[in-house]
Amino acid sequence: MIIVLRAGATEGEVRQIEDTIRAKGLSAHISRGVERTIIGAIGDERKIDTASFEGLPFVDKVLRILAPFRLVSREFQKEDTVITVRGKTVGGKRLALFAGPCSVEDRGMMVGIGERVAACGATFLRGGAFKPRTSPYAFQGLGEEGLKYLAEAREATGLPVATELMDPRDLDLVARYADVIQIGARNMQNFRLLTEVGKLDKPVILKRGMSATIQEWLMSAEYIASEGNQKIILCERGIRTYEPATRNTFDVSSIPVVKSLSHLPVVADPSHAAGKVTLVEPLAAAAIAAGADGLMIEVHHQPSMALSDGPQSLKPDAFEQMVLRLRRVAEAVGRNL
Amino acid sequence: MIIVLRAGATEGEVRQIEDTIRAKGLSAHISRGVERTIIGAIGDERKIDTASFEGLPFVDKVLRILAPFRLVSREFQKEDTVITVRGKTVGGKRLALFAGPCSVEDRGMMVGIGERVAACGATFLRGGAFKPRTSPYAFQGLGEEGLKYLAEAREATGLPVATELMDPRDLDLVARYADVIQIGARNMQNFRLLTEVGKLDKPVILKRGMSATIQEWLMSAEYIASEGNQKIILCERGIRTYEPATRNTFDVSSIPVVKSLSHLPVVADPSHAAGKVTLVEPLAAAAIAAGADGLMIEVHHQPSMALSDGPQSLKPDAFEQMVLRLRRVAEAVGRNL
Amino acid sequence: MIIVLRAGATEGEVRQIEDTIRAKGLSAHISRGVERTIIGAIGDERKIDTASFEGLPFVDKVLRILAPFRLVSREFQKEDTVITVRGKTVGGKRLALFAGPCSVEDRGMMVGIGERVAACGATFLRGGAFKPRTSPYAFQGLGEEGLKYLAEAREATGLPVATELMDPRDLDLVARYADVIQIGARNMQNFRLLTEVGKLDKPVILKRGMSATIQEWLMSAEYIASEGNQKIILCERGIRTYEPATRNTFDVSSIPVVKSLSHLPVVADPSHAAGKVTLVEPLAAAAIAAGADGLMIEVHHQPSMALSDGPQSLKPDAFEQMVLRLRRVAEAVGRNL
Amino acid sequence: MIIVLRAGATEGEVRQIEDTIRAKGLSAHISRGVERTIIGAIGDERKIDTASFEGLPFVDKVLRILAPFRLVSREFQKEDTVITVRGKTVGGKRLALFAGPCSVEDRGMMVGIGERVAACGATFLRGGAFKPRTSPYAFQGLGEEGLKYLAEAREATGLPVATELMDPRDLDLVARYADVIQIGARNMQNFRLLTEVGKLDKPVILKRGMSATIQEWLMSAEYIASEGNQKIILCERGIRTYEPATRNTFDVSSIPVVKSLSHLPVVADPSHAAGKVTLVEPLAAAAIAAGADGLMIEVHHQPSMALSDGPQSLKPDAFEQMVLRLRRVAEAVGRNL
Repeated sequence: MIIVLRAGATEGEVRQIEDTIRAKGLSAHISRGVERTIIGAIGDERKIDTASFEGLPFVDKVLRILAPFRLVSREFQKEDTVITVRGKTVGGKRLALFAGPCSVEDRGMMVGIGERVAACGATFLRGGAFKPRTSPYAFQGLGEEGLKYLAEAREATGLPVATELMDPRDLDLVARYADVIQIGARNMQNFRLLTEVGKLDKPVILKRGMSATIQEWLMSAEYIASEGNQKIILCERGIRTYEPATRNTFDVSSIPVVKSLSHLPVVADPSHAAGKVTLVEPLAAAAIAAGADGLMIEVHHQPSMALSDGPQSLKPDAFEQMVLRLRRVAEAVGRNL
Repeated sequence: MIIVLRAGATEGEVRQIEDTIRAKGLSAHISRGVERTIIGAIGDERKIDTASFEGLPFVDKVLRILAPFRLVSREFQKEDTVITVRGKTVGGKRLALFAGPCSVEDRGMMVGIGERVAACGATFLRGGAFKPRTSPYAFQGLGEEGLKYLAEAREATGLPVATELMDPRDLDLVARYADVIQIGARNMQNFRLLTEVGKLDKPVILKRGMSATIQEWLMSAEYIASEGNQKIILCERGIRTYEPATRNTFDVSSIPVVKSLSHLPVVADPSHAAGKVTLVEPLAAAAIAAGADGLMIEVHHQPSMALSDGPQSLKPDAFEQMVLRLRRVAEAVGRNL
Repeated sequence: MIIVLRAGATEGEVRQIEDTIRAKGLSAHISRGVERTIIGAIGDERKIDTASFEGLPFVDKVLRILAPFRLVSREFQKEDTVITVRGKTVGGKRLALFAGPCSVEDRGMMVGIGERVAACGATFLRGGAFKPRTSPYAFQGLGEEGLKYLAEAREATGLPVATELMDPRDLDLVARYADVIQIGARNMQNFRLLTEVGKLDKPVILKRGMSATIQEWLMSAEYIASEGNQKIILCERGIRTYEPATRNTFDVSSIPVVKSLSHLPVVADPSHAAGKVTLVEPLAAAAIAAGADGLMIEVHHQPSMALSDGPQSLKPDAFEQMVLRLRRVAEAVGRNL
Repeated sequence: MIIVLRAGATEGEVRQIEDTIRAKGLSAHISRGVERTIIGAIGDERKIDTASFEGLPFVDKVLRILAPFRLVSREFQKEDTVITVRGKTVGGKRLALFAGPCSVEDRGMMVGIGERVAACGATFLRGGAFKPRTSPYAFQGLGEEGLKYLAEAREATGLPVATELMDPRDLDLVARYADVIQIGARNMQNFRLLTEVGKLDKPVILKRGMSATIQEWLMSAEYIASEGNQKIILCERGIRTYEPATRNTFDVSSIPVVKSLSHLPVVADPSHAAGKVTLVEPLAAAAIAAGADGLMIEVHHQPSMALSDGPQSLKPDAFEQMVLRLRRVAEAVGRNL
């Protein structure tokens, strides 16, 4: 870590920083330039919070040399992580395709949509039984009943199922039914929940928080990995910006950036990013072209009657047509779909 | 709710929207202009999600007429909410002053700082026993031990204590020790946690999420209120923007905006917004001038050795001097501190 | 335009709004609901600024029904605009490929790079003679000398040349040498400059401002079109967000959004968005997959010695390899490169 | 400047960076750590663009040691700049108060409003003759006629007048009438315009760009100063964020941050930031409390009929009342108004 002091910092202030560095078990290297004094903290800088220095009135800037994450970093593991669940993979040459409705609404729809998307090439079935909703008055999901329908759809289709976990108290319940557990964007920094799924032996989809930096996203993955669970699938779903034309701004750059920093697979959720059904296909194509390892697509048989997020959902026919076109994009970049 | 269709929308598409509106129990009013068809949904529009329409390819824009929150709105209750805890108030003419360290670190420091800030006019003591930390390798708080020290500091000072709750499983534990429960910025949309604190008869500080709109913040307050707990204290702590000079951008406008939309008290946390000790006083003064009902200030006897967020903390002496100066600002806008 | 009043708005306030609407030549339609009064302004709402109402204390919300732009809208012209310059096109099935150095540095480099990129399939040559630089102490471009080298490179390669105009006083000079005139991101709302290029009979590349909404971008295009020049090429180059991993966040969604709202062609500049050479190819591929009509790529024979923006520039060999791979992506979405 | 290389950077890559540093006339200091190689560029780092290194694939991070601005920095000049125009000051203990309509609309209104605001304590009269408007179809200002009315209002009131310059071709015209020249937010990086006003001997108000960092804002001030004109007044007017409740987010923190980095005075424009008349006073009070050197307030005798930005304008009576209340806030922080 490199700490640049403000001009005019006193010897006492330099010493204060040295003391803090040493108290953390690192050594300090001081270089007094004509204009500024610069202090290097040598050793495992992950033990030091940059905030320990940034707020000091005589400190100008602090630069971390190493990434604050380790287990999920490309330096820790050179080769790409490939996760296998019931014979389906995430990571590697073949793209993963998670498809299904936003919310599980009833048994018939779940099995019906499941069979349609399976026939189109989906490799995972998705559907929410616990739904994070902005309003306390909105539909909150079917809970365990929804999980059961998901499991039935797995029986019918053979596809592994993914669903969201919102509360550590539901962990056993959700883990009993789901093959893949999703942590939603709003819970990306729910550190207690991350710690709990870190103790499981099940893949976790970690959605990027609405205003999370790529580094914070990887730190949240590190929370899961540090508990022992390395089966982490990152999911880009758009970030909050000033632009009102889309619900969120799909940060397509995060895909190659994450892949350079981490060995974990990254999938894209264009449905939530865009919030408009007409944008799903161009964003899905963009994600594949940029190197995504898979897609998560909302499909509903009657979007205008969906209990949540209907209008960003594709009908099964439209989904089928889209997959055919996306297959060509995948092949153009050396992948299969 | 007003739904503006794209030019060229068909009769079938108009009917699809009408059907959705009627299925929710509202009535639809259609007005066909020269250039666009506009549909009004008449009735309790809180039952309809704007997303039900926004994503449709033939819909151009959707406008909600009423705010999606009700219990926390100024229309529901005209007069300001005043919350009283052990004789101290939040809301009303006298400003609330929450002060204390970021983390509870040991008994001596907690009691020591508590006594100092009490002497300077603090009305509540704050300190974290459970700390949300970006890194899994950072100090996570003392847990119950920290809560005990907080309670001892309450004994010593007579001040009610406020502390953060991160996990619904800790609710009973935290509620046993704390007078005021804080929901941190990262948990502002942890809806399960909101629902749980909504069942308590204890004041809740609801920090604004790092990228939450004012409307989303009030919707999270509505979650708490809808469970029966109306003792909610909103806390502005800065939002995420592109500006790197401050840790977050303190959104001082949110104070008058919230006060016009809601009857709830709003306090400001300049320490977290700024991330720099030198900015605490100007931001605190700005918040008071803009109408805040109180402040939350980090105070630490040895900031450079703090286990978290040290350098944005004031030393007790500096805190004392600052309170004297802020008192003059409070009086200039007709308040007491 | 629809104006929703706050609860409790008086008759006098309603009348004030009616008067303003009528003074602009529109008619007012008032609907008094149980909870709110809503006023519709019927007629050419482009004559009214939403700000005329938004700031009033008794107005809650204002919704424009029609887009504020007209000439550049898809409603004004259904079919895509295709621009032809010296036999090269922008718009249509074949992708445009603008390539060249950020700054023109000397005659040899300009002709040399020009010949290399022409051989790889570039259809336009780019290079800056006037450079907008954040620092007054940085290289500001060669000015007319640079324009001359550009013209010589055009002679040598047969490719039309594009270059930036920063100042209305340089209009004649730049128009004398350039085939396509670029308006940079920082000048997207330099309305005087837009008005001047609107009077030319030459294509204009209009880069999106760093924090411009898509609507503001199209309004700036409308400025140009309203003066008579419809040969406008929009260029997405990334927007400013909180994410520090990339210089700007490449808003890939803007491509399909613009194409649905406007008949104008849209190209992408991944070099400036990313600020890192390793991100140029994934973002270029994403842009093509999302429907962009072309690319603008920085190429430099010795990036580390470039006088501006070197390290986001590709070397000619790398450019050649990239074009071969991007050609496959273009074909996968039914385009040629 | 400190350059941190990626793990595994080769000797050739290290040498490439050394060569670039030396080519700019600085010397390079290389330190090879266990995990990373770090290169320091010793000398006048303002000659090097961080982008020269940031985009290189083997570079991880680049940290500038010194601020890229010099003349406007607090290190260059310790004491606050105080600007005097016709006996009125900006900077120093007394707050400057710029007041007047957004646009000059006619002679009578300009003189009338001028006399009213002068009587309330305004120290400068403001009004736009050239207006930057998002729409080409909106009122663009009266041009020279407006400047004449401004000059007449100066005669009538004795107050110096401030008005916006948008185009270098209008420089002589505007300079003939105005005492203070304003550069609007959209032109903050119109570097040619900055260079031109830098050659004048007249104060310049430099508004912060809608998405400018504080550093970029100061760099634009440096452009003006580097041409010889040090009479620069910075003006915070809100930045673009995701929050829709206000037109822009008033960044009150920028006031103390700028005052610590620069000797230039900073004023606040709460009218444009808020876009709502009800927010003007709380934001004005916040700005004063945070240390602003003055205010810029829109006043109009009939806001609902204003040709631009009416509804954020105060009526003269409301302005008078507000000034009385703000005076108390100013006194509370040791200033006069």
